[in-house]
This record gives sequence, C-alpha cells and structure tokens, in this order.
Amino acid sequence: MLKRTHTCGELSEIDTEQTVVLNGWVNKWRDHGGLIFIDLRDRFGVTQIVFDPSVNKEIYLTAKKLRSEFVVAVKGKVEMRPDDSFNPSISTGKIEILAREIEVLNESKTPPFEISDNIDINEELGLTYRYLSLRRQKLQQNLILRSRLYQSVREYLTKNSFVEIETPVLMKSTPEGARDFLVPSRNYKGKFYALPQSPQTYKQLLMVAGFDRYFQIVKCFRDEDLRRDRQPEFTQIDMEMSFVDENDVMTIADGLIRKIFKDIHGIDISTPIKKMSFQQAFETYGNDKPDLRFDMQIRKLNNLFKQTDFQVFKDVLSQNGHIAGLAIPDGSELPRNRIDRLVEEAKNYGANGLAYMKYQKNEFSAGISKFISDVEKKNIREAFPLKENDLLIMVAGKYEMVYSVLGQLRLDLGQELKLSDNSQIRFIWIVDFPLLEFSDEENRYVARHHPFTSPKPDQIDLLSEKPQEVLARAYDLVLNGNEIAGGSIRINTRKMQRKMFEALKISKEEAENKFGFLMKALDFGAPPHGGIAFGLDRLAMILAGGDSIRDVIAFPKTSSGLSLMDQAPSEVDNVQLRELHLKIL
Amino acid sequence: MLKRTHTCGELSEIDTEQTVVLNGWVNKWRDHGGLIFIDLRDRFGVTQIVFDPSVNKEIYLTAKKLRSEFVVAVKGKVEMRPDDSFNPSISTGKIEILAREIEVLNESKTPPFEISDNIDINEELGLTYRYLSLRRQKLQQNLILRSRLYQSVREYLTKNSFVEIETPVLMKSTPEGARDFLVPSRNYKGKFYALPQSPQTYKQLLMVAGFDRYFQIVKCFRDEDLRRDRQPEFTQIDMEMSFVDENDVMTIADGLIRKIFKDIHGIDISTPIKKMSFQQAFETYGNDKPDLRFDMQIRKLNNLFKQTDFQVFKDVLSQNGHIAGLAIPDGSELPRNRIDRLVEEAKNYGANGLAYMKYQKNEFSAGISKFISDVEKKNIREAFPLKENDLLIMVAGKYEMVYSVLGQLRLDLGQELKLSDNSQIRFIWIVDFPLLEFSDEENRYVARHHPFTSPKPDQIDLLSEKPQEVLARAYDLVLNGNEIAGGSIRINTRKMQRKMFEALKISKEEAENKFGFLMKALDFGAPPHGGIAFGLDRLAMILAGGDSIRDVIAFPKTSSGLSLMDQAPSEVDNVQLRELHLKIL
Repeated sequence: MLKRTHTCGELSEIDTEQTVVLNGWVNKWRDHGGLIFIDLRDRFGVTQIVFDPSVNKEIYLTAKKLRSEFVVAVKGKVEMRPDDSFNPSISTGKIEILAREIEVLNESKTPPFEISDNIDINEELGLTYRYLSLRRQKLQQNLILRSRLYQSVREYLTKNSFVEIETPVLMKSTPEGARDFLVPSRNYKGKFYALPQSPQTYKQLLMVAGFDRYFQIVKCFRDEDLRRDRQPEFTQIDMEMSFVDENDVMTIADGLIRKIFKDIHGIDISTPIKKMSFQQAFETYGNDKPDLRFDMQIRKLNNLFKQTDFQVFKDVLSQNGHIAGLAIPDGSELPRNRIDRLVEEAKNYGANGLAYMKYQKNEFSAGISKFISDVEKKNIREAFPLKENDLLIMVAGKYEMVYSVLGQLRLDLGQELKLSDNSQIRFIWIVDFPLLEFSDEENRYVARHHPFTSPKPDQIDLLSEKPQEVLARAYDLVLNGNEIAGGSIRINTRKMQRKMFEALKISKEEAENKFGFLMKALDFGAPPHGGIAFGLDRLAMILAGGDSIRDVIAFPKTSSGLSLMDQAPSEVDNVQLRELHLKIL
Repeated sequence: MLKRTHTCGELSEIDTEQTVVLNGWVNKWRDHGGLIFIDLRDRFGVTQIVFDPSVNKEIYLTAKKLRSEFVVAVKGKVEMRPDDSFNPSISTGKIEILAREIEVLNESKTPPFEISDNIDINEELGLTYRYLSLRRQKLQQNLILRSRLYQSVREYLTKNSFVEIETPVLMKSTPEGARDFLVPSRNYKGKFYALPQSPQTYKQLLMVAGFDRYFQIVKCFRDEDLRRDRQPEFTQIDMEMSFVDENDVMTIADGLIRKIFKDIHGIDISTPIKKMSFQQAFETYGNDKPDLRFDMQIRKLNNLFKQTDFQVFKDVLSQNGHIAGLAIPDGSELPRNRIDRLVEEAKNYGANGLAYMKYQKNEFSAGISKFISDVEKKNIREAFPLKENDLLIMVAGKYEMVYSVLGQLRLDLGQELKLSDNSQIRFIWIVDFPLLEFSDEENRYVARHHPFTSPKPDQIDLLSEKPQEVLARAYDLVLNGNEIAGGSIRINTRKMQRKMFEALKISKEEAENKFGFLMKALDFGAPPHGGIAFGLDRLAMILAGGDSIRDVIAFPKTSSGLSLMDQAPSEVDNVQLRELHLKIL
C-alpha cells in the first residue's frame, strides 16, 4: 500500500515540487478536456489531483474508472494551479497533485446520497447509512468539536483537583423518577441489574469515602417514552464536591463554562453568572429556563386591577387568581386572523381566553379596551414601558396556568417575530427551587430534583406542615432557554434523609429496601457535599450550533429507541432467554 | 459551616502563626496529659490538632466527645511541634494546629474496621462497606493513579489526532464469542438490546465514516462465568486507525506506553518494544503471554533424540510428537518429595509424565539418566547452557500439551524459586498469531481474535484448504506475563469478510442477520484500517502495584457478579416485568 506522507488538508504553495502520497476518498471526479481531476478527501481536507494521459497513460486509464467514494492512494508532485483556478475556499486551493502512481485501495458502490453538506437527506435514510452521513463535513466537525469539549472539561476539572472515577453501569434498580432499563441476571434467577439513570448514589458514596472532588463523563439511561430529541442513552458531565455550599459548586461550574467557551469558541463568558430565583423566573418568563436572548417580560398585573369593573378579571382576583400580561412589539399590526390564532394558542396551552388591547398613538383600542378604566390604562402604561404599536396580551386565572401560558406564547412569538439575537449567549442560574411538587397522578409530593436534595436548613421544620413552601438547596444552569446543568447540596444525615422520605410518603421499608445502603453510609461520617451534572449532548449541540442532539451523537437512535443502522433492538435466541430464566409473554 | 482555608496535607513550618480552618475526618484521637490530640484526615493528608483546656475549655470538652471518623471543621493557629515530636513520615509532621474553634459537621458510628492500610480486612466485609474501604490511603492512591492514567492516555491520543467518540451502550446483540448481557425493550415486545462486549463494529464504522483516528475509554461487558479477578464490566482503551498496517498501530501503542510510564512513574520505556512470533513464544515460554522477568527458556529437543533408544521418547517421535525441556536452576537440590510433586503437577496440567535428570559436576544422574546415551547427554549440555546443580525436566507428547505444560511449570517454579525480579518491566509484542483455532466443542474453527481480523494477504488462498495454517494480522502487547492489549488489521471488503465467515462455518443468512449492516458498510469505500484495545483495569493494577483489578475499581463486584454493598442484582416489580413483556420461568 502506498502510505500517505501528508493528509488531504495539509499541502500548500510552500510544498510545490515535493513528491507526496495522499490517501483518501474520491469526493468529486471530472473529465476536463482530456485531463481527469479528482478532489481527494479525508477528514483533514480536500486536495485536487490531476491525471494527465501524457504523463502516464496507464494511471490515467485507472483514474478514468474511479467513481465517487472510491478509496485511493495517489503519489505525485505538488504543483501550483494556474492562477485562474485558485480555490480560495480551501487551504489547499492554490496547489494540485500531478499524479504519477495510483492504487485503488477499495471500491465503492454508488452511495444512496451525495456526501455533501448542501443536500437535505431524508432522516431515516441518513440514520440507516449513518456511516455515510458521518462523512459529511458538518457532522465530522461536530464530533471533532465534541471530542475537544471532553478534553476541555477534563483539563479544567483535573486542574481543580477533581478525581475521575468510573462508577458501575450494572447497578441496583431503584426506580424513583424515570423508568430503569433492566438487565436480567443469569447467575441470580429472577434478579436484575439496572442501568444508571445517573451515578447519583455512587457519587455521594465517593464523598463519604473521602474523595473530596469527583467527576466523570458518563453515559446515563432512561427508559422513557421519548419526547422529540431525547435519546434512551445520554451523556452527563457528573461532578460532586465535599465541604461546600451552593456557591462553591456554582463557582466551579462558572469556571468550567468559561474554560469551555474559551477553548471551543475563543469567547470570554463573564462570570460569576447571574442568579435568579425560581419564582422570579416563573413570574417573568413563565418557566424555569428563561431564554434571555430577548426581553418581552411578563408582568404581574394583580395590583393594577384590584378595583376593576371588568368582570372576568374581578372574578379571577376574587378567587385568589392571577392576572399577568406581556407586550408584543409591533403586535398591533398583526392581522386580525393572527390575533385570533393567538387566542386559540393560549387556549391550547390551557388558558380560558386571552385578553388583548392594541396600543397606538398613546391610546388603547380593540379587544377588552372598552372595559378598562382610564386609571387602569394609565397604570398599565407605567407598568410596562409600552411602545407605539405594541399589542398587550393578558391571561387571568390560576397562578401556574397564567405564567406558563404567557411563557409559552412569549417563546412562540419570540421565534415568530425573530426577536431573539441568536448570536447571543445568555446564561442564568436559577436558584431557590421548591423542594417538592405535588403529583396528581401519584397523589403525593415528589422530589422536584431528586430525594437526596437538601432543603434549606432553616425550612426543615416546615417539611411536615407546609411541604410546598420548602425551598431546596438546588440550582440549575440555563443557557439560551435550555437547562444545561442541574445540581444541589445533598442530604448528609440519615435523620434528614428519613424526614425527606417521609415527606415523599416512601415507607421506612421501601426506603430501607431501595436506599438502605446509602442511609447506612450516612451513618459513618458523611461530609457536607453537593454537586452538579451537565447534559453534555445538549451543551455540545449548542456549541456546534446544531438543531438536534442527534447532530452531535455518532450513532443516535430514533425517538422510539430504534437503531435504524443495525435494527437494534432485535430478537434473541431462545437459548439465551432460557439461560436468563425468562419467557416472553 | 467553618469552611476550610487549607487541606489536611498542605501546611508546613512556613505557615506557622497563620490562622487556618481545616475540614476532615478524625483519624486518631488521644488524650495525653490533659491535652487532646487528633489527627485530622482528608484525601490530601493528615494534620495534628491540639485541644488545650487552658486555651478554650468549651471546645476542649467538645473534642473530648469526638470519635474516629467524625467529620469536623477546626479553626486554629499553626504552631511548630516540639522538636521531639516531629513526624518525618508526613509532610505536615513538623506542625500542629492549636484549636480555637470546632464544629462537628457529622458524627459517625464506630466503623466495622479501622481505616488503616495496615489492617487485613475480610474481603466480604470490605466490599459491603466499600465506602469505608475506599477511605484507606492505598485504595485512594490507586484510584487517583487511575485518574491520572486516563488523562495521560487522552493527552497522548488527542495530540496524535485521535478523535474521542462515544459509541452506543444499547446495541445490537451479535453473540460470537462471549455471552452478551441483554436489555429487554419495552417499546418492541420480545426484542432486546445488548451491552457491548467491545465497540468493535462501531469503531470500524467510524473508519468507514472517515474519522481516520478514533479512541474511547469505554466500559465493556461480558456475561461470562467469572474466573478469578474478572468483572462483568470492564474498561478498555479502544483505538482504531485508517490507512495503516500492523507496524503503524504498534508504533502508536509503543508511544502510548512510553507516555503512560513516564507520566505515572517517571520511567523511560525503551521503544520500539520488541516483537516475538506466537510460535516462538509458545515454544520458548509455553504460552502467548510470556513473562520475561526471568529466563528459564523451554528448548525443543526433538532433534537431539532422533536416534534415541529411550522407548518413551522414541514412541512420541514416531507419532510426530514433541519433546521439550527446561532447566531449573539449583533444581538438583530440590528434595525428593518436591520433585515427586513436580511430576504430579505436570500430570495435573495434562502431561503423561515428567522426565528429569540432575546435572551435577558435569554429570547427569537420577531420573531417566540411565536411559540416555552419552551423545545425547553431550548434545543436551550444548543445547542448554546447563549450570551446576540444574535439574533438567522434560515432557514428551502432543505439541500443544508439551509446551503448555512446561510453560505452566516454568511460571510456578519461577514464582516458587523467586527467579523473577519483580521490579522489572518487561514488554513484548506477540505477532503472527494463527487466524483460527479449532473448537472441539463447536466442531468448527473459531476466530482466535474475532471474525473481523484480517488474514495475512499472501495466505488468503489457504483459508479454505488449510485454515489452521493461516496467520492473522494480529498483535498482542504483553507486560510481565499479562496480556494488556490486543488488536489487528481488519478485513475491509465484503468479499474477504464473507470468506472469513465461510471459514468459521457461519452461514450467509446468519452473517447477514448479525453483521449485514457492517458488510453493507464495507461496500461503500471502507479504508484499510486496524486498531488495538488496552485492558485499562489490568494496566492500572500493574501501575499501582496491586494484586487484583478490584484494587483499582471503585465499586467492584464479586466473582459471581454480586454487588455486596447494595445487593445488586435484585428483584423488581411485577409491573416493571409486565411492561417489558417478560415472565420469570
């Protein structure tokens, strides 16, 4: 085999007259006036090769038979291209190789789609031939970026005394939250391992063991009905620290973010990243992961309508409901049918209706404007800094509904009206989360993060009386409307852990059965500790400017968990099942 | 919480007079003439704290109640110890902290064993309380070394243009070799994912995709009946390269080994690491992973006994058998019953018997010496450089048996007679492996490495006629008798892959069903490629000077795959099983 002396992205005018060997794929093939040109491609770049029958007839004839995606080795001399055929878009664009030897290393059938970034490929076809999709430059660059991301993360964390430790993949099944993937045991009939939803218990045990600072870039698994753009297996940057409080963890995470954005994009993120309470986020942006790339804040209007005669609002306030609104820039110019659709959308999101008023020439008109008093109108103008042509929309009703509906509309409108500057990078920490949330389905409180999250120390006594009011020592990091990390300070005594399980209506037996080993560990000198986990797939996606986490995963599955390339999951031998003591129903 | 200003391994005489805060565990507690001393421990070291009732009565009383493994925060002044109580074995041994404040951060029950490297712990107890075992300094240092090993590997590989890419954990079940762990699918009734035994097919697909150089430090899984010191999940350093031959891969691996030993132990490994053929290794050391830390080579003696009158040897040679022997240094002085046991051991390893002769004062005596002619004796003396008091042992019979029995005895004797210099680091590449080996159990040839390994190009035609003679483009790296890495150049055309499957008696349908996706990928321009995988657990164990891979794994399982700490695997809900469409037999 003719072994390469250079990659296809390496040669330039300073290499002319050298004899070189390149190995790669035929990217483009063309016959131009008796000369054959191919663009030879590898992951490093593309180099033009020329076959001239007057130089060597035999290799010219071989070159004639080349087709796209053939793998070849070419030996030849680096020459300058004629001035008028420079290609400034590639680094090798001033030179070409005049071929003197060629070896076809492998042939290729005609691929089902052209290997080019400029072509839309049917998603199923692209996943079936994933190894060909991955030849596209964009996907290659994404995975190379992801590789750099790993190194950047590890460099930062090891410099900060974190120890990288692998935790088991075959672990105990302890469903509390999402569904576990199970792995039947052959040696222990009727028993199962589970794949980790996260290494949560292990990293806490590592703190009990005194490792002080732990990290791992680790695969996690959830057998959920997959929503759009989720994968059954996903990757976390998992960290835990001892002798820390919330701010220590957030400070380390701030530094990690700074390092990553500097290494990957040369951007300086300003730290400390600002913090916002869960309540403020919810009442201003309608969710706990605000997209701050555009403003359009929600305003609570309860006080403005205290004395209102508008019956709808009056009724809501009398039932301790909320009224809130937001101003859509230039919304008064939206056509009537768009406004009608907006009302429908609000209803689809759960509102009873959507009240609105146009604001033009300092006056309110249309919608509910005739029901609103002049004083109220004046107050509204002051509450919002309204601008000419704004459309004020308002929702009234139950607290949760009001803000979440407005939050949804805000996001939809932000996108539709292109309010967001997508080049912006807007981080925010969300803190002071409620510890628990009530699950109507299970008719009990469930942990908003997970049952190992510590409540605020001064609120522990509230846990039995007013569990809904207790705040957690938890924090989420949000980037441009995506939750990219979440963590908390953990419970580190058996007494507090038991209190938490009681609040969750998990019986002593169940707690012992599932988490007895962790509670036992807390008896032997568990230090104060806390941590955080970053969703690496989403972070890589944002860094790569992709639309889907599939763009940064080498071999993703469909949203139903199917691998189209190899048809996993698949049937297995009966012998295998018998060995596992299992029968299919 | 009193937050630490320093770790417990950081302070020394230059810090005297400073007021500091330390956080850690009470390692030792003693009451000395009215003063209380504690050794406060964290992963960075140990610092002595003094509580003096005349300085602060209240904290003295708190300190009186401290017990081993309590977690405390202490504030105090750094002072020089009296000259006569310096402890030169620790870096903080010249100072102590005179405590002025103390906060008990958590209490501890009395641990089931003392946290000390100097105590033998029952293995089951140690695994049950793994988080306490992991507080022992030796295990902490092992895992910290392992963390450094990861970083060293990744630094080397990324510098050499390898891209780190994660491959799926939930993959297609393709049993060929060991048994897969299976993961039942909830969405696809009766179908299963498998956990990877290695990312072999994926890394080949990444080469087809053009990534050129791939690596990953990755968990792999085998549901085997665990031999001593195996784990159901283990970690590999997995690599693959395009446009390479065997030497290119071995050169990269040589460089990796150099980098690792330099980074971890400051040792310069001389490269290129030498190569030895499989045949030579087998006929000289009796196996394919020779321990070169001691000599005692096996010698083939067939030619010496061509004309022999000794009936046993004569018979063996007439049946195309082999005779080989090795010389045990000072073996003539072994007591008679030890020599008798040696004969028994040889029989246990599969020999019909063990022939021997003592060599003393240039003469052979005892054993079979009276049956051996003078010419033969002279030739033996020349074949071996025999030394005074050597014991020559010989085995005759079938080829495989002869060398493997002598190889086993060589290892046993090497250990018993302490022939090996354990401070040595002896690497060797084993090359020219047979491609196939006959499986009596399956009554067919099976792949010695795996079915994707390429045969030597000039021997492909032998594959149908004399499959046993075909050599593989495979290579194993051996360190001190341990196989620490293995790899090969892969098959990269459908035609050759099909030929290989035919040699393995895998039908076209079965091949299509299991590996159709890989064969299809080979149709679209698969470059020449090859790779290697290092067993990271064993490598870390050797680097840490441990006896068992459990010494370098945070949460290992027993040899039957049980996690004693959390009792995984465990029973699961019937609801979970129903969702997976499964019933236990």
